[in-house]
Amino acid sequence: MPDKEKLKNSVGIVEAKYFTFETPLTLESGKTLGPVTLAYETYGKLNPSRSNAVLILHAFSGDAHAAGFHKDDEKPGWWDGVIGPGKAFDTDKYFVICSNSIGGCKGSTGPSSINPDTGKPYGLDFPIITVADMVNAQEKLITYLGIEKLLCVSGGSMGGMQALQWTASFPQRVASAIPVATTTKHSPQQIAFDEVGRQAVMADPVWNKGNYYDKGHQPERGLAVARMIGHITYMSDQSMEEKFSRKLKEKDFSFSFKSEFEVEGYLRYKGDNFVKRFDANSYLYITKAMDYFDVSGDKLLPKGVKVSTKFLVISFASDWLYPSYQSKDLAQSLRLKGVDVTYCEIKSTYGHDAFLLETESESRLIKHFLEKITGEVNGR
Amino acid sequence: MPDKEKLKNSVGIVEAKYFTFETPLTLESGKTLGPVTLAYETYGKLNPSRSNAVLILHAFSGDAHAAGFHKDDEKPGWWDGVIGPGKAFDTDKYFVICSNSIGGCKGSTGPSSINPDTGKPYGLDFPIITVADMVNAQEKLITYLGIEKLLCVSGGSMGGMQALQWTASFPQRVASAIPVATTTKHSPQQIAFDEVGRQAVMADPVWNKGNYYDKGHQPERGLAVARMIGHITYMSDQSMEEKFSRKLKEKDFSFSFKSEFEVEGYLRYKGDNFVKRFDANSYLYITKAMDYFDVSGDKLLPKGVKVSTKFLVISFASDWLYPSYQSKDLAQSLRLKGVDVTYCEIKSTYGHDAFLLETESESRLIKHFLEKITGEVNGR
Repeated sequence: MPDKEKLKNSVGIVEAKYFTFETPLTLESGKTLGPVTLAYETYGKLNPSRSNAVLILHAFSGDAHAAGFHKDDEKPGWWDGVIGPGKAFDTDKYFVICSNSIGGCKGSTGPSSINPDTGKPYGLDFPIITVADMVNAQEKLITYLGIEKLLCVSGGSMGGMQALQWTASFPQRVASAIPVATTTKHSPQQIAFDEVGRQAVMADPVWNKGNYYDKGHQPERGLAVARMIGHITYMSDQSMEEKFSRKLKEKDFSFSFKSEFEVEGYLRYKGDNFVKRFDANSYLYITKAMDYFDVSGDKLLPKGVKVSTKFLVISFASDWLYPSYQSKDLAQSLRLKGVDVTYCEIKSTYGHDAFLLETESESRLIKHFLEKITGEVNGR
Repeated sequence: MPDKEKLKNSVGIVEAKYFTFETPLTLESGKTLGPVTLAYETYGKLNPSRSNAVLILHAFSGDAHAAGFHKDDEKPGWWDGVIGPGKAFDTDKYFVICSNSIGGCKGSTGPSSINPDTGKPYGLDFPIITVADMVNAQEKLITYLGIEKLLCVSGGSMGGMQALQWTASFPQRVASAIPVATTTKHSPQQIAFDEVGRQAVMADPVWNKGNYYDKGHQPERGLAVARMIGHITYMSDQSMEEKFSRKLKEKDFSFSFKSEFEVEGYLRYKGDNFVKRFDANSYLYITKAMDYFDVSGDKLLPKGVKVSTKFLVISFASDWLYPSYQSKDLAQSLRLKGVDVTYCEIKSTYGHDAFLLETESESRLIKHFLEKITGEVNGR
């Protein structure tokens, strides 16, 4: 059960809703996908002029549960620190929506969903999707919810990519964007980390070319290794030093291959836990979507298109997975095109994880930015 | 066949020698290992006063072949740029020795060697070894070669750890040390990368708790994943950008899980190649030795011991696997104890690989340092 005090400061008990559209989505690859279901949650109320909607986009392994508590859960949604009454994305003022991306495994259509053509899970018959495809599916949801123009799109990491993709795909439907700890395109190092994770999954014989859904278990060992790699990139050298240093789980070295440094135990724990909640094929599809993502240069703001979207770009000093220089490049290229952009690097030692942890610093920036945008949208 | 021009500028055609000692080595764990064979190579001539010997120590996956050409090989040894006639470790002046570390798979005793007790490869019956154990085995070789005091010990990465361990274990037998791109102890991030590599190997069912030597093949997929992780850490973000950027192998995206970015192809190639030349169990044992390694603080220079060893510490600006701050910490702690130390950070974009590639910059530093040490040793 949720802690009472925490519950009081949150949007309360929430649950996922589901939206399905039957008309197949035409994907960037040229293939089609349909019917498509999106799992989503909403917090706060849409105002009569439908001008206070904020779309929150989740990171790689995230889900639609961004804030509040699911019944019986002890932990709130993944960005509860910034979404709620009086918080940065103030649910007393804004109507906040978060949907699980397609390709995922948290309620939206993905490779573990049933393929209507076969009556069995898609597996590798699921088409390759891109971040633009994710956003095209979300657009259907936003339209279904009766929202013509979003006050703001925001998210960290892959969520930031989706926010940027929204401004590229639907510039007229987004008043503002807050991409956090993200990039306009993966560098070769970022692709490399993704590819090694995919290879770890595919090297596991249980993966079996994506056909494991009827086997009772998934490629757990390969997926755990992939997740362990990920976790190293989410922390900074310094935050690992502060958290673990060279501390041992037991008093002395075991002189064996047992996990004996605390950092080893932590990584194994994180890897083992991840396989209980995430689908290995979704891992492949979503990392691939991130690698394909590229809204650099003219792809974000096509020549001749007047963009009135306002940007708040946030990065973190110790984030070496999505280093600040990538956010600076984004801000600079927006400025060169005359777009209104505020860029801020938050001092933090938490590495990439900072976007989930430094909610106080984020809140200060987001709160003021959103108030300004709200004023402008309402012609004040 | 080696290129004639390159051959002329090298120590020429060389081959490995082997030294075996029967008396078991008592290891740090308390276990014993014996008999022990060390594969080694030598270049140049030992002078009559036996005062011109330089011991070169190799990195994690290296071997005794540091310079010159093996018959029929096109490529020279791994540090040929700094070892040879007229080069930094000038074989016209110095007697250069390089031996394969124990635990490895390039001629020295390791887990793939025959266990005399069973007549079969050791596998996981091989005892856990440490960097100090590697150095203790090398000490037998140096004594066998009739050398009381080494003019210099040097190496990069794990080679630098061994150089530091020499100064800690045998301070009276080392006139100088040149640790390159290394550390006095692995940080939790460095341990984490090693642990993920080990998990990748052990997740491969072919690994079979180390018993694969009679199966005709080793855990190739797991070992390849481990190596791919390694390769990411050996390059810098910038060197990857310069080498690969987002270039594709084909004209367009394949919308499949084929390797399509050049960086993906490179990593797969490096992974696949590595498994042809390296033993998976050696991967486990040697990474473990690096993780245990710790000569920080008083462990490098025990209190009350007068150390006359002179140090030249070298690091590289873009090396994020063994970042410069670790070398700076080493230099600073040596200075605080009154030890003669020169520290230099070489500007380079190559990342950790720089220690193998920036041989010109290294040479300038090493050449002068060694000439000074030689003068001091000879009382000039």
